[in-house]
Amino acid sequence: MSTDRVVVLGSGSWGTTFAAVTADAGCPSTVWGRDAAVVAEIDGDHRNSAYLPGIELPSALRATTDAASAVARADVLVLALPSKVLRDTLGPLAGAIPDGAVLVSLAKGVELGTGRRMSEVVAEAAGVDAARVAVVSGPNLAREIAERQPTATVVAAPGVALAERVAAACSTDYFRPYTNTDVVGVEIAGAMKNVMALAVGMAVGLGMGDNSKASLITRGLAETARLGTALGADPQTFAGLAGMGDLVATCTSPLSRNRTFGEQLGAGHSVDEVVGATRRTAEGVVSCRSLLALARSLGVDVPITEAVAAVVTGALRPQELAATMFRRARKAESG
Amino acid sequence: MSTDRVVVLGSGSWGTTFAAVTADAGCPSTVWGRDAAVVAEIDGDHRNSAYLPGIELPSALRATTDAASAVARADVLVLALPSKVLRDTLGPLAGAIPDGAVLVSLAKGVELGTGRRMSEVVAEAAGVDAARVAVVSGPNLAREIAERQPTATVVAAPGVALAERVAAACSTDYFRPYTNTDVVGVEIAGAMKNVMALAVGMAVGLGMGDNSKASLITRGLAETARLGTALGADPQTFAGLAGMGDLVATCTSPLSRNRTFGEQLGAGHSVDEVVGATRRTAEGVVSCRSLLALARSLGVDVPITEAVAAVVTGALRPQELAATMFRRARKAESG
Repeated sequence: MSTDRVVVLGSGSWGTTFAAVTADAGCPSTVWGRDAAVVAEIDGDHRNSAYLPGIELPSALRATTDAASAVARADVLVLALPSKVLRDTLGPLAGAIPDGAVLVSLAKGVELGTGRRMSEVVAEAAGVDAARVAVVSGPNLAREIAERQPTATVVAAPGVALAERVAAACSTDYFRPYTNTDVVGVEIAGAMKNVMALAVGMAVGLGMGDNSKASLITRGLAETARLGTALGADPQTFAGLAGMGDLVATCTSPLSRNRTFGEQLGAGHSVDEVVGATRRTAEGVVSCRSLLALARSLGVDVPITEAVAAVVTGALRPQELAATMFRRARKAESG
Repeated sequence: MSTDRVVVLGSGSWGTTFAAVTADAGCPSTVWGRDAAVVAEIDGDHRNSAYLPGIELPSALRATTDAASAVARADVLVLALPSKVLRDTLGPLAGAIPDGAVLVSLAKGVELGTGRRMSEVVAEAAGVDAARVAVVSGPNLAREIAERQPTATVVAAPGVALAERVAAACSTDYFRPYTNTDVVGVEIAGAMKNVMALAVGMAVGLGMGDNSKASLITRGLAETARLGTALGADPQTFAGLAGMGDLVATCTSPLSRNRTFGEQLGAGHSVDEVVGATRRTAEGVVSCRSLLALARSLGVDVPITEAVAAVVTGALRPQELAATMFRRARKAESG
């Protein structure tokens, strides 16, 4: 049982859900969001109808638009922000972070330009040692967790003590964290699964069947493991909940935004058209380019990521995707 | 390009589909079936409306009810029979098998009582050396292949030459075999995936969501790999198309009979009720018991298989399944 005060920066579906979990775990929990209407609804009505329609949030959960005050009271500061705004949102708050606080990244991606993992961006922007930063990742479709359906996850941190402290703050009867010290593997798996979900979505949009989807998911995990191990990850991580588990959940669930976004691309729409119609982007659309750059810098072959990035930038038509991905896959599987 | 004469014993959906593939690959191909009406329809109308409704089979594909004559002309003899009738069907035909013929098992399971893999049963029943027996397994939902949707598969044999010969006989523009020499791994993966599909089906029938399903599939592959490596399989096989690929396809597709059967069990029906209503059983219902016996004889922990077998035999209510499987999974993931 944890009594850590938890502050979650980000009031989207995952940030709100994770704060609901820590509130259910008994931790005094506050969500920070930029949008005053969303914050007022969470704080007053225990709802976030824009991101989690129909869900009743814990009555103890608070919300605020005052980031600096919230951060100053945090024992556990959780970052539930899109990868591309993480650094710029956290940086100005660095001075408010208490000395004893620990940080938790829920962000999935690799920073464009620097190739940094999200926990590295968090440590840099907050001006703290990497030993104070944990990550949470797993087969965690937010909507199902908000409905309190049983779910397992992985809490990874450089040291076991930090992983266990964060695990205690989010452990409930429906949300069960396992601890791990392979931060690199867990983060690379979390970032790559969004790219793979885009690829599977494109395959679905193109009319491909379950055999092809399963082959793509299988090759996608192999590609993820190649990149992760080149960065020093433990190969076993990719066979676990944060690797295969998250990949399968994200690639097969209609609740996944990346998968749904990919379906629209596969059906022939451009990224701009899909963003215009849905008013939201998907994390994989951003991170496919940074992950491809990272893989190239290491000399790692990532044919699916390469194909997804080419479709996203308009250099490849989705119809050409299958031939590109599967021709390469053939070589890779026999090698 | 192969000119081997292919004879497939078994006119169900996978047997008929595989024969259609070898016919499309250019091999003179014949399906044997016990049911004269099915055989007449395949041979005369190029259809198998009972198992593959709406599919037009290759016009060159033949069918017969005369097993001995067909077997006597085979260069490649393919066994597409349920595991529990394989030995008794093949045994009486052993004398008719030409000396130069090779055998291919499409059967998935482990023999009850003996714990033998299907390729071992084939070799014993046919009275041939194991070096003459190959297996084919992968993310291969028959219906999609019959529709000529692009699919990859694995052909495993003790020697590369045999694997390549069989691969040549079933290689088409939509069906692409990769060769492998890990017969044990490919067969254990193929047998276990039916048990895991039953488990996932039960979870779906109980109303569990995509996070839980993905966790179950992940734990299921870990359990499969534990059993396989205890039998001498290459751990890499489980990360490939015949391992993870087939598991994901079978567990996530509504086309999978084992998954659909599991959903009925999860909804509270007994095995007898489901068989009575659908007039068909599912391979996993038989093989969960033989796989459990095999695992116990080796001292391998297989909690999901154990839970499925307990539900199938009526010793456990499906409602208790989740608690059983996930309590064990927690221990296993951290271990």
